[in-house]
Amino acid sequence: MTLYMNLAELLGSRIEQGFYRPGDRLPSVRALSVEHGVSLSTVQQAYRLLEDNGLAAPRPKSGYFVPAARQLPALPAIGRPAQRPVDISQWDQVIELMRSTPDPNVVQLGRGMPDVASPTLKPLMRELSRLSRHQGMPGLYYDTVSGTEALREQVARLLLDSGCHVSPNDLVITTGCHEALSSSIRAICEPGDIVAVDSPSFFGAMQTLKGLGMKALEIPTDPITGISLEALELALEQWPIKAIQLTPNCNNPLGYIMPEARKRALLTLAQRFDVAIIEDDVYGDLAFHYPRPRTIKSFDEDGRVLLCSSFSKTLAPGLRVGWVAPGRYLERVLHMKYISTGSTATQPQLAIASFLKEGHFEPHLRRMRGQYQRARDLMIDWVTRYFPAGTRCSRPQGGFMLWVELPDGFDTLRLNRRLLEQNVQIAVGSIFSASGKYRNCLRMNFASMPTPQVEAAVKSVGLAASELLQEQSA
Amino acid sequence: MTLYMNLAELLGSRIEQGFYRPGDRLPSVRALSVEHGVSLSTVQQAYRLLEDNGLAAPRPKSGYFVPAARQLPALPAIGRPAQRPVDISQWDQVIELMRSTPDPNVVQLGRGMPDVASPTLKPLMRELSRLSRHQGMPGLYYDTVSGTEALREQVARLLLDSGCHVSPNDLVITTGCHEALSSSIRAICEPGDIVAVDSPSFFGAMQTLKGLGMKALEIPTDPITGISLEALELALEQWPIKAIQLTPNCNNPLGYIMPEARKRALLTLAQRFDVAIIEDDVYGDLAFHYPRPRTIKSFDEDGRVLLCSSFSKTLAPGLRVGWVAPGRYLERVLHMKYISTGSTATQPQLAIASFLKEGHFEPHLRRMRGQYQRARDLMIDWVTRYFPAGTRCSRPQGGFMLWVELPDGFDTLRLNRRLLEQNVQIAVGSIFSASGKYRNCLRMNFASMPTPQVEAAVKSVGLAASELLQEQSA
Repeated sequence: MTLYMNLAELLGSRIEQGFYRPGDRLPSVRALSVEHGVSLSTVQQAYRLLEDNGLAAPRPKSGYFVPAARQLPALPAIGRPAQRPVDISQWDQVIELMRSTPDPNVVQLGRGMPDVASPTLKPLMRELSRLSRHQGMPGLYYDTVSGTEALREQVARLLLDSGCHVSPNDLVITTGCHEALSSSIRAICEPGDIVAVDSPSFFGAMQTLKGLGMKALEIPTDPITGISLEALELALEQWPIKAIQLTPNCNNPLGYIMPEARKRALLTLAQRFDVAIIEDDVYGDLAFHYPRPRTIKSFDEDGRVLLCSSFSKTLAPGLRVGWVAPGRYLERVLHMKYISTGSTATQPQLAIASFLKEGHFEPHLRRMRGQYQRARDLMIDWVTRYFPAGTRCSRPQGGFMLWVELPDGFDTLRLNRRLLEQNVQIAVGSIFSASGKYRNCLRMNFASMPTPQVEAAVKSVGLAASELLQEQSA
Repeated sequence: MTLYMNLAELLGSRIEQGFYRPGDRLPSVRALSVEHGVSLSTVQQAYRLLEDNGLAAPRPKSGYFVPAARQLPALPAIGRPAQRPVDISQWDQVIELMRSTPDPNVVQLGRGMPDVASPTLKPLMRELSRLSRHQGMPGLYYDTVSGTEALREQVARLLLDSGCHVSPNDLVITTGCHEALSSSIRAICEPGDIVAVDSPSFFGAMQTLKGLGMKALEIPTDPITGISLEALELALEQWPIKAIQLTPNCNNPLGYIMPEARKRALLTLAQRFDVAIIEDDVYGDLAFHYPRPRTIKSFDEDGRVLLCSSFSKTLAPGLRVGWVAPGRYLERVLHMKYISTGSTATQPQLAIASFLKEGHFEPHLRRMRGQYQRARDLMIDWVTRYFPAGTRCSRPQGGFMLWVELPDGFDTLRLNRRLLEQNVQIAVGSIFSASGKYRNCLRMNFASMPTPQVEAAVKSVGLAASELLQEQSA
């Protein structure tokens, strides 16, 4: 842990233990700097982290205060998944979530959909339309396997923000992050191989392991600092692990950003045991902090990190444009991408390349980050207000997903069935585990503009959960 | 073989043996009907086949004549691939073909690109543009794993033309035929499994087998009737073959249409040995005959045929929209599609669905079929005129690919290198074999409008081939 995180943790625990009460003024930046012998900027970083966690609120010219109105639910417990590689189950639940045509009458709290109604996306639509009317109809032609050069150039530039220096030739454009992940996994692993994953983990990546005949070894994961390095090290000692697959930035579903020091330590572990890292950064550009967090890839020196991402969460998923920076596995990933789809659709690539080149992406990101951050606060408030006592929830540092944990023994599969009658849909926790753990958890999406309809939906989730809990104890 | 094919073969061999000479009038339909005891329509079908093969030409109100001006090159020899399963090689040559950004100064005779400059594609572009300006921006949203229902309905309707009765729910939309093929192969096979393929065979499908760790068993293939059922039966008796992967309609690269009786016989074989058939029909809608040929799938009763296709050859490859009708393997293919790309880009699906629904597809197909058929005749004429004596070539019955065979020992890799200096590119024959056979063959594309520039390019291929042959014998 870095200095500022240590300090934030210390202050945070004092606040949570009631040493500082709601409405209290917190120590000044200068005072803390002197008290702990750290720089002013370290204290400021610590306060920003506390702010993101809802534990401190700045007031202009008066410093930081403990927020009066908010009492945050406790953090989710660290999961205790099986300590051995398992065959992945839960496909039936995933396909149930993914197969149904979204019903406009159902409030979709379960899916990974960003808000695509923002006016900052208009230039992208204009470009798509312009390309369709273009005389040469470039969108009709095959692209190359690696993807349009204009887009690879823009992605290489974008990656600088996360500390990555890769050339356009080091990139392969993919049909969404899905193809980036599956091409990466297939480039490295054979059926029967073991892949270590953060737990809870993105179900899409786990179902890819399942589909390709690999086993997942779920590693306990802290809701603030990410995958447990201690547990991972033990696992690496014990099992012939081929790769580590994880989402260190704005994790799906937990929302944490893994501290830089832990990212470096993870990379050192991977080097020591000579395993590859498949890093999913699909929410990384939606971190609420500025500048955005670095990727593990940005510290990579021997090309063992395959960085996978896409524009599905930052722009729109229907475009199906992602990428992978596969390091030393480039040739193999190219082969896997070629056999998977040949090439990626041309027109969306050209439109996105032009959107980025014209400078529309950064203002769009700024707007979405702000919107999602405010929506997160509201969503946590609603959970506090409407969910049964004892409900825990995550503190997303980016993205638009909230992880909610109900008491042990609670069954979110039953909850989901009951909610569908009320036209509300959630993502059940069990799909985020290879072996169906986290049945008492669920994931909710706070991407869309917070309307009374969304609030009512969240309220109905909370009420239904309370009912089920009462029935259970009756 | 059916009656009309028997008759066509008989007449064809009489013409080729000089029994009828160029300019001669051929027997009347009525006379042949009486002579062979077959119906008038059977004779007419036989003549149409001869016409497609360039062996007979109709003159209005005077019957059929042996074409005076054309002397067709001989057919390619039946390949003699290895009689055992092999690991697939040639990836380096395939990626060389697929990776390079098409240089507008190079005449691309090697790639699988249709002509996308036809005005009959305009309504599709208009629809793409309209969708981009649509208020609800439907193209930005995730589609379901199976694909847009509106498109699945249109594809189900389209499949009726090839004798297939499948419901929209039996279909999975894919990101091009590539994804249909790789999802199908992965749904059935494990690494190490053996797949029988027609030979020469589409390199994309073979590279998929390679990438997934399977072995290919190349089956000798007749340039007129397709995969040898006799050789296939022997192979099925001898090896634990898991699936048969082939392109029976407008084969790539040979251009034949497998006769219906042989399609049925192939299916019977597959039933007897209980193997799946992966049928690539991507050129099937471009057959020069009307109505278009039936698929093997159309005879399938127990769901063992996975029919793979796309709009890449009929509309435009840059859209990346294909489909698979996976029969009894639906659930497994859905999983494979999900892990490969999640879902297919939404907007091209919607645009194509609307293009089909509005009735634009059939007129477009009619136009392209006519254009490609005329271009085929020209291309064969150019090969006759400009290539060294002894050059053989295929008789494409649809699509836009010509297979050219030079004398034994000729090296098309050397030819290709020399041609690139002259800004002409071909597809070398060796990529169509798992083990690098057909080095003396090449494939040329005749999709684009036959311009003097294209003729000059074909001429330069012929001249360069003659030069190389002379150098070789010197």
